[in-house]
Amino acid sequence: MPKFNHRVRVAFPDTDASGRIHFTAMLRYFEAAEIEFLRALGYRYRDAPDVGFPRVRVECEYRTAVGFDDELDIAVSVKRVGTSSYTLEFAALKEGAVVANGSIVVVCVGRPGRAQALPEALKEALRGAGSQPAAAS
Amino acid sequence: MPKFNHRVRVAFPDTDASGRIHFTAMLRYFEAAEIEFLRALGYRYRDAPDVGFPRVRVECEYRTAVGFDDELDIAVSVKRVGTSSYTLEFAALKEGAVVANGSIVVVCVGRPGRAQALPEALKEALRGAGSQPAAAS
Amino acid sequence: MPKFNHRVRVAFPDTDASGRIHFTAMLRYFEAAEIEFLRALGYRYRDAPDVGFPRVRVECEYRTAVGFDDELDIAVSVKRVGTSSYTLEFAALKEGAVVANGSIVVVCVGRPGRAQALPEALKEALRGAGSQPAAAS
Amino acid sequence: MPKFNHRVRVAFPDTDASGRIHFTAMLRYFEAAEIEFLRALGYRYRDAPDVGFPRVRVECEYRTAVGFDDELDIAVSVKRVGTSSYTLEFAALKEGAVVANGSIVVVCVGRPGRAQALPEALKEALRGAGSQPAAAS
Repeated sequence: MPKFNHRVRVAFPDTDASGRIHFTAMLRYFEAAEIEFLRALGYRYRDAPDVGFPRVRVECEYRTAVGFDDELDIAVSVKRVGTSSYTLEFAALKEGAVVANGSIVVVCVGRPGRAQALPEALKEALRGAGSQPAAAS
Repeated sequence: MPKFNHRVRVAFPDTDASGRIHFTAMLRYFEAAEIEFLRALGYRYRDAPDVGFPRVRVECEYRTAVGFDDELDIAVSVKRVGTSSYTLEFAALKEGAVVANGSIVVVCVGRPGRAQALPEALKEALRGAGSQPAAAS
Repeated sequence: MPKFNHRVRVAFPDTDASGRIHFTAMLRYFEAAEIEFLRALGYRYRDAPDVGFPRVRVECEYRTAVGFDDELDIAVSVKRVGTSSYTLEFAALKEGAVVANGSIVVVCVGRPGRAQALPEALKEALRGAGSQPAAAS
Repeated sequence: MPKFNHRVRVAFPDTDASGRIHFTAMLRYFEAAEIEFLRALGYRYRDAPDVGFPRVRVECEYRTAVGFDDELDIAVSVKRVGTSSYTLEFAALKEGAVVANGSIVVVCVGRPGRAQALPEALKEALRGAGSQPAAAS
Protein backbone atom coordinates (compact mmCIF):
# COMPACT_ATOMS: atom_id res chain seq x y z
CA MET A 1 0.00 0.00 0.00
CA PRO A 2 1.54 3.34 -0.97
CA LYS A 3 2.46 5.77 1.79
CA PHE A 4 0.41 8.86 2.57
CA ASN A 5 2.57 11.90 2.05
CA HIS A 6 1.89 15.54 2.72
CA ARG A 7 4.29 17.99 1.13
CA VAL A 8 5.19 21.15 3.02
CA ARG A 9 7.43 24.07 2.13
CA VAL A 10 9.41 25.54 5.06
CA ALA A 11 8.10 29.06 5.67
CA PHE A 12 10.34 31.89 6.84
CA PRO A 13 8.72 32.29 10.30
CA ASP A 14 9.36 28.56 10.88
CA THR A 15 13.09 29.34 10.99
CA ASP A 16 15.00 30.83 13.91
CA ALA A 17 18.30 32.65 14.40
CA SER A 18 20.20 29.36 14.10
CA GLY A 19 19.42 29.59 10.38
CA ARG A 20 17.42 26.35 10.58
CA ILE A 21 13.82 25.62 11.52
CA HIS A 22 12.77 25.93 15.15
CA PHE A 23 12.21 22.46 16.56
CA THR A 24 8.50 23.12 17.14
CA ALA A 25 7.99 23.75 13.41
CA MET A 26 8.40 20.04 12.69
CA LEU A 27 5.52 19.26 15.07
CA ARG A 28 3.32 21.75 13.23
CA TYR A 29 4.20 19.97 9.96
CA PHE A 30 3.23 16.67 11.55
CA GLU A 31 -0.11 18.14 12.62
CA ALA A 32 -0.78 19.59 9.16
CA ALA A 33 0.00 16.17 7.68
CA GLU A 34 -2.36 14.51 10.18
CA ILE A 35 -5.19 16.79 9.10
CA GLU A 36 -4.59 16.03 5.41
CA PHE A 37 -4.23 12.33 6.17
CA LEU A 38 -7.64 12.29 7.86
CA ARG A 39 -9.13 14.35 5.04
CA ALA A 40 -7.83 11.73 2.58
CA LEU A 41 -9.56 9.10 4.74
CA GLY A 42 -12.81 11.08 4.55
CA TYR A 43 -12.69 12.64 8.02
CA ARG A 44 -12.39 16.31 8.89
CA TYR A 45 -11.89 17.58 12.44
CA ARG A 46 -13.92 20.67 11.56
CA ASP A 47 -16.97 18.42 11.22
CA ALA A 48 -16.76 17.35 14.88
CA PRO A 49 -17.40 20.60 16.76
CA ASP A 50 -18.67 18.91 19.93
CA VAL A 51 -15.51 17.03 20.72
CA GLY A 52 -11.87 17.98 20.93
CA PHE A 53 -8.71 16.08 20.07
CA PRO A 54 -5.92 17.24 22.39
CA ARG A 55 -2.50 15.66 22.14
CA VAL A 56 -1.53 13.85 25.33
CA ARG A 57 1.93 12.77 24.26
CA VAL A 58 4.34 13.86 21.54
CA GLU A 59 7.87 12.87 20.76
CA CYS A 60 10.22 13.74 17.94
CA GLU A 61 13.80 12.97 16.92
CA TYR A 62 15.70 15.38 14.71
CA ARG A 63 18.44 13.92 12.53
CA THR A 64 19.41 16.56 9.99
CA ALA A 65 19.12 20.32 9.78
CA VAL A 66 16.19 21.68 7.78
CA GLY A 67 16.26 25.22 6.42
CA PHE A 68 14.13 27.93 4.85
CA ASP A 69 12.35 27.04 1.62
CA ASP A 70 13.19 23.33 1.88
CA GLU A 71 10.46 20.98 0.69
CA LEU A 72 9.60 18.12 3.02
CA ASP A 73 7.40 15.11 2.55
CA ILE A 74 5.65 14.12 5.74
CA ALA A 75 4.68 10.43 5.79
CA VAL A 76 1.87 9.48 8.18
CA SER A 77 0.85 6.06 9.44
CA VAL A 78 -1.51 4.73 12.12
CA LYS A 79 0.25 2.93 14.93
CA ARG A 80 -2.66 2.22 17.27
CA VAL A 81 -6.41 2.84 17.46
CA GLY A 82 -7.91 2.55 20.95
CA THR A 83 -11.33 3.25 22.40
CA SER A 84 -10.81 6.94 23.02
CA SER A 85 -7.34 7.60 21.62
CA TYR A 86 -5.05 6.86 18.71
CA THR A 87 -1.36 7.07 17.94
CA LEU A 88 0.05 8.35 14.67
CA GLU A 89 3.62 8.01 13.46
CA PHE A 90 5.36 10.55 11.28
CA ALA A 91 8.53 10.75 9.24
CA ALA A 92 9.78 13.87 7.50
CA LEU A 93 11.80 13.26 4.34
CA LYS A 94 13.96 15.73 2.46
CA GLU A 95 15.05 14.54 -0.97
CA GLY A 96 14.23 11.01 0.11
CA ALA A 97 16.21 10.98 3.37
CA VAL A 98 14.53 10.96 6.78
CA VAL A 99 15.34 14.21 8.58
CA ALA A 100 13.00 13.71 11.55
CA ASN A 101 10.51 11.21 12.88
CA GLY A 102 8.08 11.12 15.76
CA SER A 103 4.72 10.10 17.12
CA ILE A 104 1.68 11.79 18.57
CA VAL A 105 -0.99 10.32 20.86
CA VAL A 106 -4.37 11.99 20.38
CA VAL A 107 -7.29 11.54 22.79
CA CYS A 108 -10.92 12.36 22.11
CA VAL A 109 -12.55 14.54 24.77
CA GLY A 110 -16.02 15.95 25.25
CA ARG A 111 -16.38 19.59 26.09
CA PRO A 112 -15.98 19.12 29.89
CA GLY A 113 -12.54 17.69 29.09
CA ARG A 114 -13.20 14.02 29.82
CA ALA A 115 -11.96 11.31 27.49
CA GLN A 116 -14.76 9.77 25.46
CA ALA A 117 -15.15 7.21 22.71
CA LEU A 118 -13.79 8.20 19.30
CA PRO A 119 -16.46 9.20 16.77
CA GLU A 120 -17.35 6.03 14.83
CA ALA A 121 -16.52 7.60 11.47
CA LEU A 122 -13.05 8.52 12.69
CA LYS A 123 -12.40 5.13 14.26
CA GLU A 124 -13.40 3.37 11.07
CA ALA A 125 -11.30 5.66 8.93
CA LEU A 126 -8.23 5.06 11.08
CA ARG A 127 -8.82 1.29 11.22
CA GLY A 128 -9.27 1.24 7.47
CA ALA A 129 -5.83 2.81 7.20
CA GLY A 130 -4.70 0.06 9.59
CA SER A 131 -1.25 0.12 11.01
CA GLN A 132 -0.14 0.63 7.45
CA PRO A 133 0.48 3.97 5.83
CA ALA A 134 -2.69 5.13 4.11
CA ALA A 135 -3.24 5.48 0.37
CA ALA A 136 -1.64 8.56 -1.13
CA SER A 137 -3.85 11.62 -1.42
CA MET B 1 1.34 60.75 34.27
CA PRO B 2 3.96 57.97 33.97
CA LYS B 3 3.83 55.67 30.95
CA PHE B 4 2.55 52.13 31.12
CA ASN B 5 5.36 49.79 30.15
CA HIS B 6 5.38 46.06 29.69
CA ARG B 7 8.81 44.45 29.56
CA VAL B 8 9.36 41.50 27.27
CA ARG B 9 12.40 39.34 26.59
CA VAL B 10 12.82 38.21 22.97
CA ALA B 11 12.37 34.43 22.88
CA PHE B 12 14.29 32.20 20.47
CA PRO B 13 11.26 31.13 18.39
CA ASP B 14 10.50 34.83 17.85
CA THR B 15 13.65 35.06 15.72
CA ASP B 16 14.04 33.89 12.14
CA ALA B 17 16.91 32.97 9.84
CA SER B 18 17.74 36.65 9.33
CA GLY B 19 19.15 36.52 12.87
CA ARG B 20 16.59 39.10 14.00
CA ILE B 21 12.99 38.78 15.16
CA HIS B 22 10.30 37.94 12.65
CA PHE B 23 8.19 41.03 12.02
CA THR B 24 5.06 39.37 13.44
CA ALA B 25 6.78 38.91 16.81
CA MET B 26 6.54 42.65 17.47
CA LEU B 27 2.76 42.47 17.04
CA ARG B 28 2.60 39.65 19.58
CA TYR B 29 4.57 41.84 22.00
CA PHE B 30 2.08 44.64 21.42
CA GLU B 31 -0.79 42.27 22.18
CA ALA B 32 0.87 40.97 25.34
CA ALA B 33 1.40 44.58 26.44
CA GLU B 34 -2.27 45.37 25.69
CA ILE B 35 -3.38 42.52 27.95
CA GLU B 36 -1.15 43.69 30.81
CA PHE B 37 -2.20 47.30 30.25
CA LEU B 38 -5.86 46.32 30.62
CA ARG B 39 -5.05 44.17 33.65
CA ALA B 40 -3.39 47.22 35.23
CA LEU B 41 -6.61 49.13 34.52
CA GLY B 42 -8.61 46.40 36.25
CA TYR B 43 -9.96 44.66 33.15
CA ARG B 44 -9.23 41.13 31.98
CA TYR B 45 -10.35 39.77 28.61
CA ARG B 46 -10.74 36.35 30.20
CA ASP B 47 -13.60 37.77 32.26
CA ALA B 48 -15.64 38.57 29.13
CA PRO B 49 -16.31 35.13 27.64
CA ASP B 50 -19.47 36.19 25.77
CA VAL B 51 -17.81 38.76 23.56
CA GLY B 52 -14.73 38.75 21.39
CA PHE B 53 -12.22 41.47 20.59
CA PRO B 54 -10.89 40.91 17.07
CA ARG B 55 -8.40 43.33 15.60
CA VAL B 56 -9.78 45.07 12.52
CA ARG B 57 -6.71 47.09 11.67
CA VAL B 58 -3.04 46.88 12.62
CA GLU B 59 -0.02 48.80 11.48
CA CYS B 60 3.59 48.80 12.55
CA GLU B 61 6.80 50.55 11.58
CA TYR B 62 10.14 48.89 12.27
CA ARG B 63 13.13 51.18 12.77
CA THR B 64 15.95 49.09 14.21
CA ALA B 65 16.82 45.41 14.25
CA VAL B 66 15.85 43.49 17.39
CA GLY B 67 17.56 40.20 18.23
CA PHE B 68 17.37 37.16 20.48
CA ASP B 69 17.41 37.80 24.21
CA ASP B 70 16.99 41.56 23.83
CA GLU B 71 14.81 43.21 26.45
CA LEU B 72 12.13 45.57 25.16
CA ASP B 73 9.82 47.92 26.95
CA ILE B 74 6.46 48.17 25.25
CA ALA B 75 4.69 51.47 26.00
CA VAL B 76 0.91 51.47 25.54
CA SER B 77 -1.47 54.39 25.27
CA VAL B 78 -5.14 54.87 24.36
CA LYS B 79 -5.67 56.84 21.19
CA ARG B 80 -9.43 56.60 20.82
CA VAL B 81 -12.42 55.02 22.59
CA GLY B 82 -15.54 54.63 20.46
CA THR B 83 -18.89 52.95 20.98
CA SER B 84 -17.84 49.50 19.89
CA SER B 85 -14.13 49.87 19.19
CA TYR B 86 -10.94 51.40 20.51
CA THR B 87 -7.50 52.21 19.18
CA LEU B 88 -4.30 51.60 21.10
CA GLU B 89 -0.86 52.94 20.25
CA PHE B 90 2.36 51.12 21.00
CA ALA B 91 6.05 51.90 21.02
CA ALA B 92 8.80 49.35 21.60
CA LEU B 93 11.94 50.70 23.25
CA LYS B 94 15.33 49.04 23.51
CA GLU B 95 17.71 50.75 25.91
CA GLY B 96 15.55 53.84 25.70
CA ALA B 97 15.43 54.13 21.90
CA VAL B 98 12.25 53.45 19.92
CA VAL B 99 12.80 50.39 17.73
CA ALA B 100 9.21 50.03 16.49
CA ASN B 101 5.83 51.69 16.88
CA GLY B 102 2.34 50.93 15.74
CA SER B 103 -1.36 50.93 16.43
CA ILE B 104 -4.15 48.41 16.69
CA VAL B 105 -7.89 48.94 16.29
CA VAL B 106 -9.94 46.50 18.35
CA VAL B 107 -13.69 45.99 17.88
CA CYS B 108 -16.06 44.32 20.32
CA VAL B 109 -18.21 41.59 18.76
CA GLY B 110 -20.90 39.32 20.09
CA ARG B 111 -20.69 35.64 19.31
CA PRO B 112 -22.47 35.90 15.93
CA GLY B 113 -19.64 38.21 14.87
CA ARG B 114 -21.52 41.54 14.89
CA ALA B 115 -20.00 44.65 16.41
CA GLN B 116 -21.61 45.56 19.71
CA ALA B 117 -21.11 48.13 22.44
CA LEU B 118 -17.97 47.78 24.51
CA PRO B 119 -18.52 46.33 28.00
CA GLU B 120 -19.05 49.32 30.34
CA ALA B 121 -16.19 48.26 32.62
CA LEU B 122 -13.79 48.18 29.69
CA LYS B 123 -14.96 51.50 28.28
CA GLU B 124 -14.55 53.17 31.64
CA ALA B 125 -11.13 51.68 32.16
CA LEU B 126 -9.94 52.90 28.76
CA ARG B 127 -11.47 56.35 29.25
CA GLY B 128 -9.86 56.58 32.65
CA ALA B 129 -6.54 55.98 30.93
CA GLY B 130 -7.62 58.71 28.52
CA SER B 131 -5.53 59.47 25.51
CA GLN B 132 -2.66 59.55 27.94
CA PRO B 133 -0.42 56.62 28.74
CA ALA B 134 -1.81 54.77 31.77
CA ALA B 135 -0.23 54.59 35.20
CA ALA B 136 2.70 52.17 35.43
CA SER B 137 1.83 48.65 36.52
CA MET C 1 -2.96 40.27 -16.99
CA PRO C 2 -4.18 37.56 -14.62
CA LYS C 3 -3.64 37.99 -10.90
CA PHE C 4 -0.99 36.10 -9.00
CA ASN C 5 -2.68 33.99 -6.35
CA HIS C 6 -1.21 31.82 -3.65
CA ARG C 7 -3.61 29.39 -2.02
CA VAL C 8 -3.21 28.67 1.68
CA ARG C 9 -5.13 26.38 4.01
CA VAL C 10 -5.61 27.72 7.56
CA ALA C 11 -3.61 25.49 9.91
CA PHE C 12 -4.77 24.72 13.44
CA PRO C 13 -1.94 26.59 15.23
CA ASP C 14 -2.91 29.68 13.21
CA THR C 15 -6.15 29.84 15.20
CA ASP C 16 -6.58 31.14 18.74
CA ALA C 17 -9.12 30.75 21.52
CA SER C 18 -11.49 33.14 19.74
CA GLY C 19 -12.13 30.25 17.35
CA ARG C 20 -10.75 32.30 14.46
CA ILE C 21 -7.22 32.90 13.19
CA HIS C 22 -4.87 35.04 15.22
CA PHE C 23 -4.40 38.37 13.45
CA THR C 24 -0.68 37.72 12.90
CA ALA C 25 -1.49 34.57 10.87
CA MET C 26 -2.74 36.72 7.99
CA LEU C 27 0.64 38.47 7.83
CA ARG C 28 2.38 35.10 7.63
CA TYR C 29 0.09 34.19 4.73
CA PHE C 30 1.02 37.45 3.01
CA GLU C 31 4.72 36.63 3.47
CA ALA C 32 4.28 33.10 2.12
CA ALA C 33 2.46 34.55 -0.89
CA GLU C 34 5.27 37.09 -1.40
CA ILE C 35 7.84 34.29 -1.52
CA GLU C 36 5.80 32.33 -4.08
CA PHE C 37 5.14 35.51 -6.07
CA LEU C 38 8.88 36.17 -6.33
CA ARG C 39 9.53 32.51 -7.16
CA ALA C 40 7.03 32.82 -10.02
CA LEU C 41 8.99 35.90 -11.18
CA GLY C 42 12.19 33.85 -11.12
CA TYR C 43 13.63 35.23 -7.88
CA ARG C 44 14.28 33.34 -4.65
CA TYR C 45 15.32 35.02 -1.40
CA ARG C 46 17.37 31.94 -0.55
CA ASP C 47 19.66 32.79 -3.46
CA ALA C 48 20.64 36.13 -1.89
CA PRO C 49 22.47 35.09 1.29
CA ASP C 50 24.53 38.29 1.55
CA VAL C 51 21.61 40.65 1.89
CA GLY C 52 18.51 40.69 4.05
CA PHE C 53 14.99 41.91 3.36
CA PRO C 54 13.49 43.20 6.61
CA ARG C 55 10.02 44.65 6.63
CA VAL C 56 10.01 48.31 7.67
CA ARG C 57 6.27 48.86 7.56
CA VAL C 58 3.25 46.58 7.55
CA GLU C 59 -0.45 47.28 7.70
CA CYS C 60 -3.49 45.08 7.46
CA GLU C 61 -7.25 45.47 7.62
CA TYR C 62 -9.42 42.55 8.65
CA ARG C 63 -12.98 42.48 7.33
CA THR C 64 -14.37 39.03 7.97
CA ALA C 65 -13.59 36.21 10.38
CA VAL C 66 -11.42 33.39 9.02
CA GLY C 67 -11.42 30.00 10.70
CA PHE C 68 -9.62 26.68 10.85
CA ASP C 69 -9.32 24.74 7.59
CA ASP C 70 -10.60 27.65 5.46
CA GLU C 71 -8.93 28.01 2.11
CA LEU C 72 -7.74 31.48 1.19
CA ASP C 73 -6.38 32.89 -2.02
CA ILE C 74 -3.76 35.54 -1.42
CA ALA C 75 -3.44 37.98 -4.33
CA VAL C 76 -0.14 39.86 -4.57
CA SER C 77 0.70 42.95 -6.57
CA VAL C 78 3.62 45.39 -6.75
CA LYS C 79 2.75 48.89 -5.64
CA ARG C 80 6.16 50.55 -5.80
CA VAL C 81 9.77 49.67 -6.64
CA GLY C 82 12.39 52.06 -5.27
CA THR C 83 16.17 52.06 -5.17
CA SER C 84 16.52 50.03 -2.01
CA SER C 85 12.93 49.13 -1.11
CA TYR C 86 9.65 47.95 -2.57
CA THR C 87 6.02 47.86 -1.52
CA LEU C 88 3.74 44.91 -2.10
CA GLU C 89 -0.03 44.86 -1.74
CA PHE C 90 -2.02 41.85 -0.65
CA ALA C 91 -5.64 40.79 -0.58
CA ALA C 92 -6.93 37.59 1.01
CA LEU C 93 -10.05 36.13 -0.60
CA LYS C 94 -12.32 33.44 0.79
CA GLU C 95 -14.78 32.06 -1.73
CA GLY C 96 -14.19 35.13 -3.84
CA ALA C 97 -14.80 37.75 -1.16
CA VAL C 98 -12.01 39.88 0.29
CA VAL C 99 -11.55 39.01 3.98
CA ALA C 100 -8.39 41.06 4.56
CA ASN C 101 -6.03 43.33 2.70
CA GLY C 102 -2.77 45.02 3.49
CA SER C 103 0.64 46.15 2.36
CA ILE C 104 4.23 45.51 3.30
CA VAL C 105 7.29 47.71 2.68
CA VAL C 106 10.49 45.68 2.31
CA VAL C 107 13.96 47.21 2.38
CA CYS C 108 17.17 45.59 1.19
CA VAL C 109 20.00 45.68 3.74
CA GLY C 110 23.59 44.50 3.73
CA ARG C 111 24.83 42.50 6.65
CA PRO C 112 25.78 45.54 8.77
CA GLY C 113 22.11 46.51 8.58
CA ARG C 114 22.36 49.48 6.20
CA ALA C 115 19.94 49.93 3.33
CA GLN C 116 21.50 49.13 -0.02
CA ALA C 117 20.42 48.92 -3.62
CA LEU C 118 18.08 46.07 -4.49
CA PRO C 119 19.75 43.17 -6.34
CA GLU C 120 19.32 43.88 -10.08
CA ALA C 121 17.59 40.56 -10.71
CA LEU C 122 15.01 41.32 -8.03
CA LYS C 123 14.44 44.88 -9.20
CA GLU C 124 13.90 43.72 -12.78
CA ALA C 125 11.56 40.95 -11.70
CA LEU C 126 9.45 43.38 -9.67
CA ARG C 127 9.42 45.98 -12.42
CA GLY C 128 8.43 43.33 -14.91
CA ALA C 129 5.45 42.59 -12.73
CA GLY C 130 4.84 46.34 -12.77
CA SER C 131 2.19 47.84 -10.58
CA GLN C 132 -0.01 45.13 -12.01
CA PRO C 133 -0.62 41.77 -10.42
CA ALA C 134 1.88 39.26 -11.79
CA ALA C 135 1.11 36.33 -14.06
CA ALA C 136 -0.41 33.36 -12.27
CA SER C 137 2.05 30.75 -11.05
CA MET D 1 18.33 22.55 47.06
CA PRO D 2 15.36 24.60 45.91
CA LYS D 3 13.94 24.04 42.44
CA PHE D 4 14.59 26.39 39.56
CA ASN D 5 11.31 27.80 38.37
CA HIS D 6 10.51 30.06 35.48
CA ARG D 7 7.07 31.64 35.56
CA VAL D 8 5.24 32.17 32.26
CA ARG D 9 1.87 33.70 31.48
CA VAL D 10 -0.05 32.00 28.63
CA ALA D 11 -0.28 34.50 25.76
CA PHE D 12 -3.27 34.67 23.44
CA PRO D 13 -1.45 33.47 20.29
CA ASP D 14 -0.35 30.39 22.28
CA THR D 15 -3.99 29.25 22.30
CA ASP D 16 -5.86 27.61 19.45
CA ALA D 17 -9.50 27.11 18.46
CA SER D 18 -9.86 24.33 21.04
CA GLY D 19 -9.84 27.13 23.62
CA ARG D 20 -6.67 25.73 25.17
CA ILE D 21 -2.99 26.18 24.33
CA HIS D 22 -1.61 24.57 21.21
CA PHE D 23 0.59 21.63 22.20
CA THR D 24 3.71 23.27 20.74
CA ALA D 25 3.32 26.24 23.13
CA MET D 26 4.38 24.05 26.07
CA LEU D 27 7.66 23.26 24.28
CA ARG D 28 8.29 26.98 23.78
CA TYR D 29 7.73 27.48 27.52
CA PHE D 30 10.25 24.72 28.21
CA GLU D 31 12.78 26.43 25.95
CA ALA D 32 12.23 29.83 27.59
CA ALA D 33 12.73 28.16 30.98
CA GLU D 34 15.92 26.49 29.73
CA ILE D 35 17.32 29.88 28.70
CA GLU D 36 16.52 31.43 32.08
CA PHE D 37 17.87 28.35 33.88
CA LEU D 38 21.21 28.72 32.07
CA ARG D 39 21.22 32.45 32.71
CA ALA D 40 20.79 31.72 36.43
CA LEU D 41 23.78 29.37 36.13
CA GLY D 42 25.82 32.16 34.54
CA TYR D 43 25.61 30.97 30.92
CA ARG D 44 23.93 32.72 28.01
CA TYR D 45 23.50 31.13 24.58
CA ARG D 46 23.91 34.57 23.03
CA ASP D 47 27.51 34.55 24.21
CA ALA D 48 28.35 31.47 22.10
CA PRO D 49 27.87 32.70 18.53
CA ASP D 50 30.22 30.14 16.99
CA VAL D 51 28.30 27.08 18.05
CA GLY D 52 24.66 26.06 17.86
CA PHE D 53 22.52 24.03 20.19
CA PRO D 54 19.90 22.17 18.14
CA ARG D 55 17.48 19.86 19.85
CA VAL D 56 17.87 16.27 18.69
CA ARG D 57 15.04 14.76 20.73
CA VAL D 58 12.02 16.17 22.52
CA GLU D 59 9.15 14.52 24.30
CA CYS D 60 6.24 15.86 26.28
CA GLU D 61 3.21 14.48 28.10
CA TYR D 62 0.16 16.66 28.59
CA ARG D 63 -2.03 15.90 31.61
CA THR D 64 -4.41 18.81 32.07
CA ALA D 65 -5.78 21.55 29.83
CA VAL D 66 -4.04 24.92 30.04
CA GLY D 67 -5.82 28.07 28.88
CA PHE D 68 -5.31 31.72 28.05
CA ASP D 69 -3.85 33.90 30.79
CA ASP D 70 -3.00 30.95 33.05
CA GLU D 71 0.22 31.29 34.99
CA LEU D 72 2.57 28.32 34.86
CA ASP D 73 5.75 27.55 36.76
CA ILE D 74 8.23 25.64 34.65
CA ALA D 75 10.65 23.59 36.76
CA VAL D 76 13.95 22.66 35.08
CA SER D 77 16.49 20.05 36.07
CA VAL D 78 19.57 18.49 34.50
CA LYS D 79 19.20 14.81 33.75
CA ARG D 80 22.48 14.11 31.96
CA VAL D 81 25.60 15.97 30.83
CA GLY D 82 27.62 14.23 28.11
CA THR D 83 30.61 15.22 26.01
CA SER D 84 28.69 17.03 23.32
CA SER D 85 25.09 16.89 24.52
CA TYR D 86 22.90 17.27 27.58
CA THR D 87 19.40 16.33 28.62
CA LEU D 88 17.08 18.62 30.54
CA GLU D 89 13.83 17.66 32.23
CA PHE D 90 10.87 19.96 32.59
CA ALA D 91 7.63 20.03 34.53
CA ALA D 92 4.92 22.65 34.12
CA LEU D 93 2.87 23.38 37.23
CA LYS D 94 -0.40 25.27 37.48
CA GLU D 95 -1.42 26.15 41.00
CA GLY D 96 0.97 23.51 42.24
CA ALA D 97 -0.27 20.62 40.08
CA VAL D 98 1.79 19.19 37.22
CA VAL D 99 -0.02 19.87 33.95
CA ALA D 100 2.76 18.67 31.63
CA ASN D 101 6.25 17.23 31.77
CA GLY D 102 8.90 16.40 29.24
CA SER D 103 12.55 16.28 28.31
CA ILE D 104 14.79 17.78 25.66
CA VAL D 105 18.15 16.51 24.40
CA VAL D 106 20.41 19.31 23.19
CA VAL D 107 23.57 18.74 21.17
CA CYS D 108 26.38 21.22 20.60
CA VAL D 109 27.33 21.69 16.96
CA GLY D 110 29.94 23.76 15.16
CA ARG D 111 28.90 25.79 12.19
CA PRO D 112 29.30 22.96 9.66
CA GLY D 113 26.69 21.07 11.69
CA ARG D 114 28.93 18.48 13.33
CA ALA D 115 28.60 17.62 16.99
CA GLN D 116 31.43 19.03 19.06
CA ALA D 117 32.42 19.23 22.71
CA LEU D 118 30.24 21.44 24.89
CA PRO D 119 31.81 24.80 25.79
CA GLU D 120 33.63 24.30 29.11
CA ALA D 121 31.70 27.08 30.83
CA LEU D 122 28.41 25.48 29.87
CA LYS D 123 29.48 21.99 30.89
CA GLU D 124 30.64 23.25 34.28
CA ALA D 125 27.45 25.21 34.80
CA LEU D 126 25.30 22.18 34.03
CA ARG D 127 27.42 19.87 36.17
CA GLY D 128 27.27 22.36 39.02
CA ALA D 129 23.50 22.12 38.78
CA GLY D 130 24.01 18.35 38.85
CA SER D 131 21.09 16.07 38.33
CA GLN D 132 19.37 18.23 40.90
CA PRO D 133 17.16 21.18 40.15
CA ALA D 134 19.25 24.36 40.20
CA ALA D 135 19.00 27.18 42.73
CA ALA D 136 16.01 29.48 42.22
CA SER D 137 16.66 32.55 40.10
